[in-house]
Amino acid sequence: MRIVVIGANAAGAKAASKAKRVNPEAEITLIDRGNFISYGACGIPYYVSDTVVEVKELMSTPVGVLRDQVFFRKVKGVDVITETEAVVVDWRNKKVELWTAVSGTTSFIDYDRLILATGSSPLIPPLQGSELAGIVTVKSIEDATFLKEQAVSGKRACVIGAGLIGLETVEALALCGMQVTVVEMLGQVLPGVLDDEMATLLERHIQSHGVQVMTSCRVSCFEGNGHVEKVITDQGEILADLVVLAAGVKPNVSLARNAGLEIGATGAIAVDDHLRTSVPDIYACGDCCETTHLVTGKRVYAPMGSTANKQGRVAGINAVGGDAVFNGIVGTAIVKVFDFNAGKTGLSEFAARAAGYDVEIVLSPAPDRAHFYPDAKPIVLKLVADRENGRLLGLQAVGSGAVDKRIDVAATAITFRATAEQVSHLDLGYAPPFAAAMDNLIVAADILKNKLSGHAKGVSPHEVKKKMEAGEDFLLLDVRSPAEHEMMRIAGAKLVPLGVLRDKLDSLPKDKEIVTFCKISLRGYEAQKILNAAGFSNIRFMDGGILTWPYELEK
Amino acid sequence: MRIVVIGANAAGAKAASKAKRVNPEAEITLIDRGNFISYGACGIPYYVSDTVVEVKELMSTPVGVLRDQVFFRKVKGVDVITETEAVVVDWRNKKVELWTAVSGTTSFIDYDRLILATGSSPLIPPLQGSELAGIVTVKSIEDATFLKEQAVSGKRACVIGAGLIGLETVEALALCGMQVTVVEMLGQVLPGVLDDEMATLLERHIQSHGVQVMTSCRVSCFEGNGHVEKVITDQGEILADLVVLAAGVKPNVSLARNAGLEIGATGAIAVDDHLRTSVPDIYACGDCCETTHLVTGKRVYAPMGSTANKQGRVAGINAVGGDAVFNGIVGTAIVKVFDFNAGKTGLSEFAARAAGYDVEIVLSPAPDRAHFYPDAKPIVLKLVADRENGRLLGLQAVGSGAVDKRIDVAATAITFRATAEQVSHLDLGYAPPFAAAMDNLIVAADILKNKLSGHAKGVSPHEVKKKMEAGEDFLLLDVRSPAEHEMMRIAGAKLVPLGVLRDKLDSLPKDKEIVTFCKISLRGYEAQKILNAAGFSNIRFMDGGILTWPYELEK
Repeated sequence: MRIVVIGANAAGAKAASKAKRVNPEAEITLIDRGNFISYGACGIPYYVSDTVVEVKELMSTPVGVLRDQVFFRKVKGVDVITETEAVVVDWRNKKVELWTAVSGTTSFIDYDRLILATGSSPLIPPLQGSELAGIVTVKSIEDATFLKEQAVSGKRACVIGAGLIGLETVEALALCGMQVTVVEMLGQVLPGVLDDEMATLLERHIQSHGVQVMTSCRVSCFEGNGHVEKVITDQGEILADLVVLAAGVKPNVSLARNAGLEIGATGAIAVDDHLRTSVPDIYACGDCCETTHLVTGKRVYAPMGSTANKQGRVAGINAVGGDAVFNGIVGTAIVKVFDFNAGKTGLSEFAARAAGYDVEIVLSPAPDRAHFYPDAKPIVLKLVADRENGRLLGLQAVGSGAVDKRIDVAATAITFRATAEQVSHLDLGYAPPFAAAMDNLIVAADILKNKLSGHAKGVSPHEVKKKMEAGEDFLLLDVRSPAEHEMMRIAGAKLVPLGVLRDKLDSLPKDKEIVTFCKISLRGYEAQKILNAAGFSNIRFMDGGILTWPYELEK
Repeated sequence: MRIVVIGANAAGAKAASKAKRVNPEAEITLIDRGNFISYGACGIPYYVSDTVVEVKELMSTPVGVLRDQVFFRKVKGVDVITETEAVVVDWRNKKVELWTAVSGTTSFIDYDRLILATGSSPLIPPLQGSELAGIVTVKSIEDATFLKEQAVSGKRACVIGAGLIGLETVEALALCGMQVTVVEMLGQVLPGVLDDEMATLLERHIQSHGVQVMTSCRVSCFEGNGHVEKVITDQGEILADLVVLAAGVKPNVSLARNAGLEIGATGAIAVDDHLRTSVPDIYACGDCCETTHLVTGKRVYAPMGSTANKQGRVAGINAVGGDAVFNGIVGTAIVKVFDFNAGKTGLSEFAARAAGYDVEIVLSPAPDRAHFYPDAKPIVLKLVADRENGRLLGLQAVGSGAVDKRIDVAATAITFRATAEQVSHLDLGYAPPFAAAMDNLIVAADILKNKLSGHAKGVSPHEVKKKMEAGEDFLLLDVRSPAEHEMMRIAGAKLVPLGVLRDKLDSLPKDKEIVTFCKISLRGYEAQKILNAAGFSNIRFMDGGILTWPYELEK
């Protein structure tokens, strides 16, 4: 049995190796159009910033063995052909036509089963000047080498796109001492990952590292004399010695499409839960194919190195006659930018509303471990839930603390369709160096339960701001301590510290709407309960407190 | 409606506050025999080591407000009576008799609903000399103050008990510069948490910090002239200026038992899933009551600050007429000791076998993030699964890296009765600063799948050692590189690097059992597959590789 795998990165390399282990009789050939195989493209920003010193490390096993042709032959029992492109799949005759540019030769390879792992390519915006020298993507080892050469302290870089790769590259170039501007067409950083109020917290952090962030900004062209010098946008010109295109990726589907394989509505290769394409004996895995979002049940295009590895294993097993299933993903994404971590799993509020859910949300900032433990760092969680059944639909988390842990726990809970009630009772590990007695996620789930049951009534910072701007007659009640109020405050808010609220009820208007808030919203919620108990009826607390207020503060 | 809560720490304080929020009409009285209330006993070791500077921090909210009587009155609307012990519960007349030692007065309080949150007490071994000065437990604020005074650099401390609190205290005292010995009656550190091979890894780390670890060691008495000077054990005398008793805790049930409430087989107060005791209108929560282990379905005593908070909320809601449920725990525990983290969730292999499961295990060491990322630190995972259905029963994790994340994810997965297959496809967050493309847990679950399906055949380091000692005729095959072999090796193992194995098959005996291994077991598994494919039939790989070999190595 001969298995041919097209594409020798995460998915393809995994599929080939796994197929050989499952069926040692099988003859496995791994074909790649590039020179370098099985490298960690996700590591490129860390190579650029010198966090990873040698490019070889991105292409090596954890014990330092280079994953090259010899490695695949000797260790994995897999033949690798590099610098050779699969140009035509003739599935009726189970044959692939190959083109080797260096030798200028065409050849053919027969297969019993074919695995397409053709990956993705950076989107290149069709703008004038895109071909200028100094404009680069973040995908290949060649890109990595070029970026590292160009990342010179004091020079100017412009990164187009504030998505995951864009922001990782922003960090890398800034750490190299470059003056960095990031341009995002949409109105926030990490669109599609974070809701806007969460994105604002990240954006502030990025700006605090001297990076200029331009959102809702459209690039019209690039200018320069051979080498790029300027990025022209609808918000003005940006001088740039280096331009990085990080406006997203698209699946490489031309080989599949030309062969007549079904392409899904997402633009990626359509596969079933066994990663079979529409043509018998052809599988697809990794960045070239679509998958299922386990929350919505919809087909999505969500390329990710982690998913590629899992899918490679499944495709490899099935190609040699096994019966493995890949059900889908929950849309987890995570990124570190300077000293800030930001992650998402499941649906954002925006995505959940767009999908038609009746949504409840919680904004909950808190230290990531026992507050008295000196390493404790703040993180903000945003839970998104389905009001109908209390099911958790998504979690976003940002901050300098352990965001990744809460994202992974929520990804697991969402996979099992957990409700707020179930999340609030998870037996998560507790010791002061790791978490508070009530983990951030438990606290957030408890707030969610309070909201779903009607005990707690929240209002988002956005809505509060809108009410202010509309001149609505309501009282914004700050229940923090005088010392906290002194440090920073929201203009127009009245201070009545929680500790004296029960004694000062007479000073508050019973006929007016009152919005309570504190640092993080827990005292705000206590205040709501105290006021409700005292007969005030129109009380809400501001989600997330002053810590998630994305507008100006008096200091 | 009057709610009386006995015990004003985690569970009691939570229950009282929650009850008031749910029913502001209710009159809530919180009674504690101590002087200090609502403090974080789990923080004591960090106060002792000066990681936490002021004892006040352990009794304050995250914004620094002292959780004292005034706080509970003003903020929570709860009356607190301290230094007053509940001595008799007369449930027929719904009355509690109170004794206030300072004033020498007896009084009575009526209740409509009573919540027992009487907590736990350190076990004091009934040994001669236990009453000597300088012998202390780790429970009260008074203990904390005493320990901090006594923790003097250069002096000798002996900690009795190598459980969670014992080891946290060992770290604290060693960080203060004391010469520390820890004595454990059982054969390993963290008995009941870790299996022995995992405990060995932690024990080595503790020893590397200059702490003497004495396991399988029984204390017979304490000696000293008024103040403790020596701990006498069956392994000899230990000089000690300070002795810490950390041999576990027992639930405080005398009040409940004397009142005729049912005490469970675990010795703790029996409660149902609504935390109702056997007597109407009396609830119990926190360290004084038992709970259900969600894996075995059995009643267990598993006191933990995190559980106490969750149960307090449930008891508080139910006491004022609500309908909240606490289903149970999965036995999660975690501890930091010096630069090492150790955690467990679900069942250990030992506990799973004792419970009658047909067990499969995986030992999987790996870096906790992308191996090329400089902050990557090693962690070792041990998965325990049910062979019958592939369900994950437990995870243990030790190492200097992010153990807590994997424990929490596994705790969540185990709560939802996840199988190896489901765990292996979890959509966990991936970016190089947080995880490898295949997270440690995914890798371990894949190995588990390989074992459950019969593709991979493992043998534990323990079994290998036994085979060696029994003089069995088998070949131990090291498939690492010559450079790795040079650094450290298992005596008697033959070196054939994986990269040349396919070429050297003739040098290996086909009729003999071969046990393969590498650094972590992945190449060991590859070697097993290569040998199987070449017609060798009796091949297993050593679980966890040389990194989890708990015996001597040649260097």
